[in-house]
Amino acid sequence: MQVTRSQISLFLCLLSCVSVIGARYTPDWTSLDSRPLPGWYDEVKFGIFVHWGVFSVPAFGSEWFWWYWKGAQNPDYVQFMIKNYPPGFSYADFAPNFHAQFFDPDAWADIFEASGAKYVVLTSKHHEGFTNWGSPTSWNWNSVDDGPHRDLVGDLGNAIRKKGLHYGLYHSLYEWFNPLYLSDKQSGFKTQEYVARKAMPELYDLVSRYKPDLIWSDGDWEAPDTYWNSTEFLAWLYNDSPVKDIVVVNDRWGNGCYCKHGGYYNCADKFNPQKLLNHKWEKCQSVDKISWGYRRNMKLSELMDLPELVQDLVYIVALGGNYLLSTGPTADGVIAPVFEERLRGIGAWLQINGEAIYGTSFWRVQTENATVPVWYTAKKSTVYAIFTTNPMQNTFQLSAPNTTDSTVVTLLGSPKPLKWAPLQSSGLMVVLPELPFSPAYAWTLKMEGVA
Amino acid sequence: MQVTRSQISLFLCLLSCVSVIGARYTPDWTSLDSRPLPGWYDEVKFGIFVHWGVFSVPAFGSEWFWWYWKGAQNPDYVQFMIKNYPPGFSYADFAPNFHAQFFDPDAWADIFEASGAKYVVLTSKHHEGFTNWGSPTSWNWNSVDDGPHRDLVGDLGNAIRKKGLHYGLYHSLYEWFNPLYLSDKQSGFKTQEYVARKAMPELYDLVSRYKPDLIWSDGDWEAPDTYWNSTEFLAWLYNDSPVKDIVVVNDRWGNGCYCKHGGYYNCADKFNPQKLLNHKWEKCQSVDKISWGYRRNMKLSELMDLPELVQDLVYIVALGGNYLLSTGPTADGVIAPVFEERLRGIGAWLQINGEAIYGTSFWRVQTENATVPVWYTAKKSTVYAIFTTNPMQNTFQLSAPNTTDSTVVTLLGSPKPLKWAPLQSSGLMVVLPELPFSPAYAWTLKMEGVA
Amino acid sequence: MQVTRSQISLFLCLLSCVSVIGARYTPDWTSLDSRPLPGWYDEVKFGIFVHWGVFSVPAFGSEWFWWYWKGAQNPDYVQFMIKNYPPGFSYADFAPNFHAQFFDPDAWADIFEASGAKYVVLTSKHHEGFTNWGSPTSWNWNSVDDGPHRDLVGDLGNAIRKKGLHYGLYHSLYEWFNPLYLSDKQSGFKTQEYVARKAMPELYDLVSRYKPDLIWSDGDWEAPDTYWNSTEFLAWLYNDSPVKDIVVVNDRWGNGCYCKHGGYYNCADKFNPQKLLNHKWEKCQSVDKISWGYRRNMKLSELMDLPELVQDLVYIVALGGNYLLSTGPTADGVIAPVFEERLRGIGAWLQINGEAIYGTSFWRVQTENATVPVWYTAKKSTVYAIFTTNPMQNTFQLSAPNTTDSTVVTLLGSPKPLKWAPLQSSGLMVVLPELPFSPAYAWTLKMEGVA
Amino acid sequence: MQVTRSQISLFLCLLSCVSVIGARYTPDWTSLDSRPLPGWYDEVKFGIFVHWGVFSVPAFGSEWFWWYWKGAQNPDYVQFMIKNYPPGFSYADFAPNFHAQFFDPDAWADIFEASGAKYVVLTSKHHEGFTNWGSPTSWNWNSVDDGPHRDLVGDLGNAIRKKGLHYGLYHSLYEWFNPLYLSDKQSGFKTQEYVARKAMPELYDLVSRYKPDLIWSDGDWEAPDTYWNSTEFLAWLYNDSPVKDIVVVNDRWGNGCYCKHGGYYNCADKFNPQKLLNHKWEKCQSVDKISWGYRRNMKLSELMDLPELVQDLVYIVALGGNYLLSTGPTADGVIAPVFEERLRGIGAWLQINGEAIYGTSFWRVQTENATVPVWYTAKKSTVYAIFTTNPMQNTFQLSAPNTTDSTVVTLLGSPKPLKWAPLQSSGLMVVLPELPFSPAYAWTLKMEGVA
Repeated sequence: MQVTRSQISLFLCLLSCVSVIGARYTPDWTSLDSRPLPGWYDEVKFGIFVHWGVFSVPAFGSEWFWWYWKGAQNPDYVQFMIKNYPPGFSYADFAPNFHAQFFDPDAWADIFEASGAKYVVLTSKHHEGFTNWGSPTSWNWNSVDDGPHRDLVGDLGNAIRKKGLHYGLYHSLYEWFNPLYLSDKQSGFKTQEYVARKAMPELYDLVSRYKPDLIWSDGDWEAPDTYWNSTEFLAWLYNDSPVKDIVVVNDRWGNGCYCKHGGYYNCADKFNPQKLLNHKWEKCQSVDKISWGYRRNMKLSELMDLPELVQDLVYIVALGGNYLLSTGPTADGVIAPVFEERLRGIGAWLQINGEAIYGTSFWRVQTENATVPVWYTAKKSTVYAIFTTNPMQNTFQLSAPNTTDSTVVTLLGSPKPLKWAPLQSSGLMVVLPELPFSPAYAWTLKMEGVA
Repeated sequence: MQVTRSQISLFLCLLSCVSVIGARYTPDWTSLDSRPLPGWYDEVKFGIFVHWGVFSVPAFGSEWFWWYWKGAQNPDYVQFMIKNYPPGFSYADFAPNFHAQFFDPDAWADIFEASGAKYVVLTSKHHEGFTNWGSPTSWNWNSVDDGPHRDLVGDLGNAIRKKGLHYGLYHSLYEWFNPLYLSDKQSGFKTQEYVARKAMPELYDLVSRYKPDLIWSDGDWEAPDTYWNSTEFLAWLYNDSPVKDIVVVNDRWGNGCYCKHGGYYNCADKFNPQKLLNHKWEKCQSVDKISWGYRRNMKLSELMDLPELVQDLVYIVALGGNYLLSTGPTADGVIAPVFEERLRGIGAWLQINGEAIYGTSFWRVQTENATVPVWYTAKKSTVYAIFTTNPMQNTFQLSAPNTTDSTVVTLLGSPKPLKWAPLQSSGLMVVLPELPFSPAYAWTLKMEGVA
Repeated sequence: MQVTRSQISLFLCLLSCVSVIGARYTPDWTSLDSRPLPGWYDEVKFGIFVHWGVFSVPAFGSEWFWWYWKGAQNPDYVQFMIKNYPPGFSYADFAPNFHAQFFDPDAWADIFEASGAKYVVLTSKHHEGFTNWGSPTSWNWNSVDDGPHRDLVGDLGNAIRKKGLHYGLYHSLYEWFNPLYLSDKQSGFKTQEYVARKAMPELYDLVSRYKPDLIWSDGDWEAPDTYWNSTEFLAWLYNDSPVKDIVVVNDRWGNGCYCKHGGYYNCADKFNPQKLLNHKWEKCQSVDKISWGYRRNMKLSELMDLPELVQDLVYIVALGGNYLLSTGPTADGVIAPVFEERLRGIGAWLQINGEAIYGTSFWRVQTENATVPVWYTAKKSTVYAIFTTNPMQNTFQLSAPNTTDSTVVTLLGSPKPLKWAPLQSSGLMVVLPELPFSPAYAWTLKMEGVA
Repeated sequence: MQVTRSQISLFLCLLSCVSVIGARYTPDWTSLDSRPLPGWYDEVKFGIFVHWGVFSVPAFGSEWFWWYWKGAQNPDYVQFMIKNYPPGFSYADFAPNFHAQFFDPDAWADIFEASGAKYVVLTSKHHEGFTNWGSPTSWNWNSVDDGPHRDLVGDLGNAIRKKGLHYGLYHSLYEWFNPLYLSDKQSGFKTQEYVARKAMPELYDLVSRYKPDLIWSDGDWEAPDTYWNSTEFLAWLYNDSPVKDIVVVNDRWGNGCYCKHGGYYNCADKFNPQKLLNHKWEKCQSVDKISWGYRRNMKLSELMDLPELVQDLVYIVALGGNYLLSTGPTADGVIAPVFEERLRGIGAWLQINGEAIYGTSFWRVQTENATVPVWYTAKKSTVYAIFTTNPMQNTFQLSAPNTTDSTVVTLLGSPKPLKWAPLQSSGLMVVLPELPFSPAYAWTLKMEGVA
């Protein structure tokens, strides 16, 4: 699990050198993949993912409701419809009940800011094809003509930016039941009607209107990037778009692309590499373990609790990733209090422990288990060891850090420096104070002047 | 008002000769206008127009509901919405209530057949843009994805054709609020995004799927035919489409086209030329004098009664036109009984008097008023004089017909030939029997062997 | 079929004498039945019946919708619900859609007045139990708390009375599914909870609030009048109520009452005695032959046409009855134009022929068939012979009237007296003019000075 | 704050002696108040209150929605309706959306059991008058005829009892807008129509059908108990009802009754006596500090957190009360996860600390503050000191307990007995171990053999 930092640094330098020299990106992966990731993204570590759409109206099963119901014909969904709706009720019939009447973007932004997240990614359009802005190519199937009668993408963006957070947009390339897409698919993706008329016009429109800092592409997997014209879009995005200098993208740009091309890597949903990657990556995860979108009948046992979420955040950051945590608002426009509680809980933990997260990089060692498991992060000669198990003893041994005489050890949130002693070959023994009460059940030892 | 029949015949012959000779039509009006009108259309005289769409849900004011509400902001419509719907309710929100749950195409076809009509024209898409078939370029804004969840265009077509009637499709070129259209409009119609992505794909799709005998184009007036690509469409329609030999079109194909180019002439709505035209024409008219679509609160005084309708039919046929009579079904899919009564009433009248209508042509004289007003139609040497006023006397004088000794005069619906005597220079005096009871209040004198 | 008028008169006189002498009515049939019918009722002959309620929302099948669906479980109704509504949808769930948003009582009153009717009877509460006024004993199941949010009984009453028409209220004693009623029924009607808490409080409330000129009682047949406390109510109504001098009631006051006790007789629905009765009676009839309430999918063939309605009116009046004709308004509050047309058509006929109807009594002969069938009515020495078949000849023979030298015969609607000649023993021969055009297809010969 | 236990015991004994001797209760407070409280109630300490009704549909503001909207005309509610509903929308119109489609009584019972509660009280009918069972006197305004189409009172009761919990029913005597009630009120409560027809029939029906262990009466305050006939009801309940031996009631039985008559005392909502009472009492409290019913837009900051709830429970039990904690389910039938989390959190705390709560009584001292505040409960010679502040030191001093040599002190949840030493006059000093992690932030010192 140990990779030398210098190896990685060299690799990153090479990438950025290429970009400094190269004048413009060309629409091919070699060129596009050479673009260095804008720096803000690796700094911020933690973002919020918002899944909101017509699926928030049935709010049953998952945001893939339409697909499970009409595509897979999953009996749970089919029965749910039979029991609760008149025969012939269609997915489009849900749209008028996407009321969003309590949607207060500033209240959302307040929660997101309080969570310690530094970027927020909204589903501008999910696989259902309903656009959360008034897309001219999605007439009467968007949030301005229907349901909320409001520019959700724009209104949330304004509130997010007032808080100084970065704003990203999720965008699904494919749409399960769009007849243009289905027709292209039937042609073996030899025709590109759907791309020309819907997918690409909307992506360009999104970028031009809302100037997102991040584009979270999805729904790419059924067709190659040559069908999607992804490289052309990215070349424009990197060369000529209004966000060319700041925008970050992920890696879902066509069948076979993920974990290989694009910006940072998402790889699979809830990706868990278990080791350091030589490419910036992000794990997306949902508080509700079953669904990314809101479910009206979710149970507590189906939700991640605060300690689990902080553990997730910690190991991901230690492995060089970012953490993008999803909550699904209700069709009424509310972040459910149980989600608000999780988010504010993470924020409270970050108030004390944030310096071990934000702006850090992975360390030469990522984890060890001398006392209880710890995850390391680092900032120059300061190394942080984060542990999520109460050692139930008042000494704490760490094997990896090499101390010097000037090494200072503290427990974040505790005012006084701790007593410590070096161990024989490497490592140290720290005398712990009583651990402060932490609802997130995670604590950080900060070691200044170690190597 | 008198035109010699031979003049007209010559003119018509010239037109048809051109077409016999010419191999293919070219996409310009000179060529397209040279196509002779397929013969069935002039034979049939009487058709039914069906206005059905999302506007049938509010069913208030007129089928232009959306426009009056949101475009013109007519206070009646604005107030209706304020009084009866929640704030923010949009036009798209009406669609789920377009249930069509009682729609029985065979029952409709039965009524239309009983009316004596020989063709039926359905709004496949009105200015609202909602398509009454599953148009791939109108996803989630069509009758299959929304509301009825049914292919209305196809289902009605099948029933109509089972009855041996001709089937036509109304199609609006423009859509009031389609953002693609609005964007083209803002460009002064220099861009054609809307035409390329919506209007033309749908027109071609309609023709290919449903093989209509008639295309009733509308909504053309804001832009020139060069914007609409009308001539390209018509050239394809006349040369290569599956209905090239039978299809009839009207004249609304771009600003300035109507009464000038295309197939038969509609000119303005409810066009009333008051004289013979040298081009086949059609008057469209609605039973409800205020609206083409259904209105839930229509009053009897706002409807045409049976005598008025038959008068309309008679003078139009006498002037060489066809009569296309509109009824608006309910959102539930029902032809209101008051409309059914009108249609069956016309049919009952045509049972007796139809030979004076179907397959006739205008006569050298169209009308006269020696006793009460009469309108003439003709079939070879048989001339029909139709009157809609009870002369209240038992002799009836006609000035125009030139009789011979072998002239035979009858009253349609009355078994025995009538006594008659020639008048001095021209014309004749007929002895009327008691007029049979006619709810339509119109009777026909048939004169065989006159000139 | 012949009864001497003097016999009848004597009988009626005896009845009224009793009432003049008797101080107060006692709550028993002998006393109550002795009350003479207030004179206005026999004068007016023709009334309108309005069936309006929650049943107007499904508007399917009949106003007995709830019963057929949930009581009889008629498959047509059960399937209708399965096909069009979600499982578990209850009858009460229809109430919010009883909008009545177009209800304009003055517009209704205008139509009713134009029909020539002189009284209007509204369903204040049908068997569903929903009250069309804000009954305190029907909380949240009435037109003020629910749906229309309006006092329908009061608002219509005001408009009807502004036109000078009499206002009556239909009231169903039983309510199919009222749990209090069902419980009484289960006890073999030994308990009277429902009567004490619902039926009687509402009847008294109706009379006190709205002062109806007529009470059209219904829904009595499952229980004896002793259960309903009918005689107590009627005694109060006749002795002490605010309408004691003017109010008219019918005969449905308990099992076995109809055609026997109460005010005028309705006997069965659509009662057709075929001969003179020695008691004032009324036939109720619906324009829609299938339902008294509105049906969204009614067909023309299921409706009575104007000639049928006028024939009905004529023979009923000739047999001493009144005619109460029902139309069902829509849940939106509209009298469908086809009903309006029928009503205005009757009114147009009555404009000319009304003197043969209003204020007349039956004659010593009610009908004969010397030429075509005629029905007689009379006013002192004037006798009216109404015929609904065109005799298709210009002489008309009548056997019953005894003429004198001063006898004058006219055709109503025709200015000049007609030539006539007495027949041998009795009767006369009239020379007819051309019959004026009558959409109702009925004409009246008026004979002054006959016996 | 110190009351001798023997004084209280004597008082309680006297009460119970009276009841053993007295044959039957008479309908007066002297007799009724003499009934001893069935023992189970004081044992169980902790119950769950469930507010569910039509108010759960708007789920805005509070379960007093109707009153604030239409009674007080509070602008927040008025505006909410104006902004989100059509004009004329009535409270009754909400009922069809009370779907309860996810209502799983066993799932609820599982949560309630897990919370450590031993009784559950459901709103059988709140002030809105809508009954959560099929009350025959609330036809079409109850959960069987409307919305859920289900016997909510019965279905929840069965599930609760399967878990061995006690089942109580909340019942509001008054109904804000019931016309019968309003009419009685206008009479200065001289008439009792509402009581005779609605309130009392329903109370008797509830008891007979569902055999509740507890009746939580409410809505009594506008009228005296003589209006409500409360004493007659209670006499029946105590003498003859099927629950006469087990049933517990509260004190809201008429204006002036509360804190004075009936069973245990609720006094005001969220009653906080701050000292020992000489009568059994209960504090009801809602997790949502603003509303007892569900609010769709509740925010985390408006909810009580777990430590606050446990503090509440602890001081109430120390003062001799019971704690009845309310959660409002959604109209869909779901206990929101944030409420589930609170309830399971209390249950987790009670798993360890429950012996300091269940079956205890108050002690001679209720609270003290020598180290941090503690609350005392007792069971024979065992005394529990519960503290909700981390003393942040490893010794803990208590002034009130008198120790002996055999006194044993433990920290609940910690296996080993603690070292302790007596203090000079009274009290003791305990050596604390590290406090176990407690999300509820409350710990219990158990002292056996103290006085």
